[in-house]
Amino acid sequence: MRKPQLLVAALVLLAATSSLVYAKVVEYEWVVDYAWAAPDCVEKQVISINGEFPGPNIRSVAGDTVRVHVINRMPTEAVVIHWHGMLQTGTPWEDGAAYVSQCPIDPEDEYTYDFVTENAGTYFWHGHYGMQRAAGFYGQLIVDPPENFTEPFKYDGEHSIVLNDWWHASMIDQQLGLFSVPFRWVGEPQSLLIEGRGRYNCSLMAGGSACNATRESCKLHVMPVEAGKTYRLRIASVASLGSFNFILEGHNFTVVEADGHYVEPVTMSDIDVYSGESYSVLFTANADSSRNYWAGFNVRGRDPKTLTGLAVLQYVNTSGEPSTPAPVSPRWNDYAYSVAKARQYLARKEFIVPLPQRGPDRQIFLLNTQNRVNGRLKWALNNVSFVPTATPALAALKYNITVEAHGGHSSATPPDYFQEGYDIMKPPPYPETVQGSGVYELKGDQVVDIILQNACSLTANVSEVHPWHLHGHDFWILGYGDGVFNASKDYASLNYYNPPLRNTAPLFPFGWTVLRFVTDNPGVWPFHCHIESHFHMGMGVIFAESVDKLPDVPTDTMGCGATKFYRSP
Amino acid sequence: MRKPQLLVAALVLLAATSSLVYAKVVEYEWVVDYAWAAPDCVEKQVISINGEFPGPNIRSVAGDTVRVHVINRMPTEAVVIHWHGMLQTGTPWEDGAAYVSQCPIDPEDEYTYDFVTENAGTYFWHGHYGMQRAAGFYGQLIVDPPENFTEPFKYDGEHSIVLNDWWHASMIDQQLGLFSVPFRWVGEPQSLLIEGRGRYNCSLMAGGSACNATRESCKLHVMPVEAGKTYRLRIASVASLGSFNFILEGHNFTVVEADGHYVEPVTMSDIDVYSGESYSVLFTANADSSRNYWAGFNVRGRDPKTLTGLAVLQYVNTSGEPSTPAPVSPRWNDYAYSVAKARQYLARKEFIVPLPQRGPDRQIFLLNTQNRVNGRLKWALNNVSFVPTATPALAALKYNITVEAHGGHSSATPPDYFQEGYDIMKPPPYPETVQGSGVYELKGDQVVDIILQNACSLTANVSEVHPWHLHGHDFWILGYGDGVFNASKDYASLNYYNPPLRNTAPLFPFGWTVLRFVTDNPGVWPFHCHIESHFHMGMGVIFAESVDKLPDVPTDTMGCGATKFYRSP
Repeated sequence: MRKPQLLVAALVLLAATSSLVYAKVVEYEWVVDYAWAAPDCVEKQVISINGEFPGPNIRSVAGDTVRVHVINRMPTEAVVIHWHGMLQTGTPWEDGAAYVSQCPIDPEDEYTYDFVTENAGTYFWHGHYGMQRAAGFYGQLIVDPPENFTEPFKYDGEHSIVLNDWWHASMIDQQLGLFSVPFRWVGEPQSLLIEGRGRYNCSLMAGGSACNATRESCKLHVMPVEAGKTYRLRIASVASLGSFNFILEGHNFTVVEADGHYVEPVTMSDIDVYSGESYSVLFTANADSSRNYWAGFNVRGRDPKTLTGLAVLQYVNTSGEPSTPAPVSPRWNDYAYSVAKARQYLARKEFIVPLPQRGPDRQIFLLNTQNRVNGRLKWALNNVSFVPTATPALAALKYNITVEAHGGHSSATPPDYFQEGYDIMKPPPYPETVQGSGVYELKGDQVVDIILQNACSLTANVSEVHPWHLHGHDFWILGYGDGVFNASKDYASLNYYNPPLRNTAPLFPFGWTVLRFVTDNPGVWPFHCHIESHFHMGMGVIFAESVDKLPDVPTDTMGCGATKFYRSP
Repeated sequence: MRKPQLLVAALVLLAATSSLVYAKVVEYEWVVDYAWAAPDCVEKQVISINGEFPGPNIRSVAGDTVRVHVINRMPTEAVVIHWHGMLQTGTPWEDGAAYVSQCPIDPEDEYTYDFVTENAGTYFWHGHYGMQRAAGFYGQLIVDPPENFTEPFKYDGEHSIVLNDWWHASMIDQQLGLFSVPFRWVGEPQSLLIEGRGRYNCSLMAGGSACNATRESCKLHVMPVEAGKTYRLRIASVASLGSFNFILEGHNFTVVEADGHYVEPVTMSDIDVYSGESYSVLFTANADSSRNYWAGFNVRGRDPKTLTGLAVLQYVNTSGEPSTPAPVSPRWNDYAYSVAKARQYLARKEFIVPLPQRGPDRQIFLLNTQNRVNGRLKWALNNVSFVPTATPALAALKYNITVEAHGGHSSATPPDYFQEGYDIMKPPPYPETVQGSGVYELKGDQVVDIILQNACSLTANVSEVHPWHLHGHDFWILGYGDGVFNASKDYASLNYYNPPLRNTAPLFPFGWTVLRFVTDNPGVWPFHCHIESHFHMGMGVIFAESVDKLPDVPTDTMGCGATKFYRSP
């Protein structure tokens, strides 16, 4: 937004919600444009910031205002940036979800994001329009605690570790393949990237100079460490498709933070990281210091066909890459192992945010199914596959702008329940579904439970992991289970004492996950599977929260779709 | 536009400007989306209409209203459609030039083009945003004369022949290459297409199944003829780069129409076709009818590296492709031949539109140079390289909306002259230029002469052909010449009696071309080199004509850039 008075509003909010004295403005100018990059030695086109790929990391202190002035220089493609994990309290238009919180920023146009970082932690930012994240449009967003706050652990240094899967096909070819009839799948990733660097075996490519293993850009990422010191690794996954398992060769580590919240320390030899999640883990460089070690990650939840993504944990800066084999992860389909790991995360004792003293005011059951619409493969919730409208939902709801549903799409409110007796163990008996742009309207000050229910895909015996991400809120993960959620029985098994607060939660194959949050943040918030292709294929819903309390929306977030006809008073 | 009252306006205009009784509305619904296509046997992504590539042809009668309802289904890319050759009298917002006449149509949004076809002739439509035309986004637009009108020639049948050059690299890779430092040129085209079909030698491609010579989509286009009958070929070029020379093996033909105007019949064995031009030629199927013949075209003005583009002139529908060699065009750099051909086109006697009875009220001399801006290769006019703004110029001028010039671009009015004594035979002595978004303001009812002056590129001894296309007007081509235009001498050599009216005119290497038009159509009109990459690299200007008489602009052409802040009274 551009209006100076809104900045004032943000500062007032800051003053009201924190005791900080030194809150400052952290300001960036980001020119978005295409660029060539060869992160795995194979050159392709990416979306860059100021020519950089991956984009720059942002660093601020909790309570700071982050102000990012975005200038779009792509010739025909608009853009938005989502600040993943930022709550955007009072600034829902800065959430950066295309056609939900704002109109995309057009070519040659500019837009200034302006929001307060509320909680310290490890976050990231990425494109949230079409599949722009898959074009390499992402970076980390680290929020440090204020000076007068002592974190419940100590470390001597830190490293960022953003994990990603990577394809040589262009983003638009990937997109078109997903929408093609018959479906054209891009296949398993060509490489796995750590901090935008990975490795592809050039001998697999037919002809041409596109693959060049000597490129500087595909030298593996290096994390220097000093023997005996303790490090914080800030791990995040912006994966387009895969779930990951990360290993630090020769070192155990202790998880201390998840999605910006402290968790009870839990020590592991490997960690599962789902797309949309972030973790801080601590490790001490106490291995044989005469050699280097691999940091590596593998695909989980899908039969891995891609080489381990690697970086170098460097004790000795002259000896280069380890000669040991790449780290091996647990069997890809050992879901019991993954569920057990997920259950280990609990709110850290001193930082438990207690649940409201009452049960849910509303329960929304969301059945996750794979479907078809006119032959196109889709994902749907309660038999509705989400499609965006040309009009941002936030402005449409605030100003009561009627949005036409195009092409036979439904604008009806989607249902809170799915059909009783639906057999989640079998492919959908009626695969055809409808596309819809309807929103779930949530009243303010309500306790809302989301019961995510997984099911069999269109292929018998196949059910996939879906990491669900909510904008505008952290939620408590009350529990995970197998089979069909049985409210009368399973509610008793949930954790009401110290469930972790997160912004992303995995839904395991043929299982359920129960989330709870309180509607204390008026806004219009996407809730979706964070797998880029799944959301693009309809796997998401929109929560319109406290529509009656929505703040006025800055003019520069409007102008597209039906908002072009809106005239503010 | 969507306002119903504007339709009424269009019909009133129609009534006022024609004596037609049966003017009708020709209506289309076009869904724009990506699609796979393999026009030369190699599959790539294109921009399609209703799944078709090339897009459908439009056919109407002069005086009809053409109404095209466009729905954009591309996920992150906006779109516009330019109706090449349509004058858009009274409807300048329907011209379909991005950021000049309208905001691009966003994903999931829609827009209805609504305009009257004023003059019968052969035209076409294409994308006019970034390089979308190069992504295959084009088709023909044929306007038939009204029933009560007899054309000055007769024929028994007709065929459309849209010529194009074609690359396997994606549009966005081509674009990025043009803007890269160092410059990355996509190279000469992989194939030349007739009606969206051509042929690539699959053995030239390394590995993979992308090239498949047995695809139905790359069977050459076939034009059936009956021996002894006369046919009208409607030829147009939407080339991204090349100039073309078209030949009908074994047949001469007679040119009768150019850019929608009848010309004195001139018989040829081959015809030059520049990007943006269209012609009707007549031929009689009087060759040996026991075999078929090639229709073919070659690149001119550049050393051709691409196989002749071919279609089949089919006398005998069982005997398939001719066994004769592909047609051979005159030497590619025989510019004298091309200039002589261009000079042959004269307004047809009965259809001469006389020039105004006075000399020019304004002369704009435009020096065509190749330049650099911060290391990027650019094209410039009078040392200004055009860049679009985020705000449509038409709305900005009508409503006096201040448009910020971004990134150091100039918004100053560009000059009518270039430096006296500039040596056109040498590369520019100071290659660095400025980028600008300024417009030339033209008063109404003026006679305007444009003197296009070609020059040496950045490479010594190289000067390229530039076909210049004007929106909103046809112009008289008064003449072509070599070297520097000398007003005091060369004005006397021009044709003031029967110059052809055109919307596109070639500017030959190291030469000049003089155009004249009358400012009788209030609007904001691009005038640019029709080579897709050249315009994208800045080779164009904007004429803002009769700003004081600009009509009100429909709201649905606004909403982007600074127009999002505009509130109509």
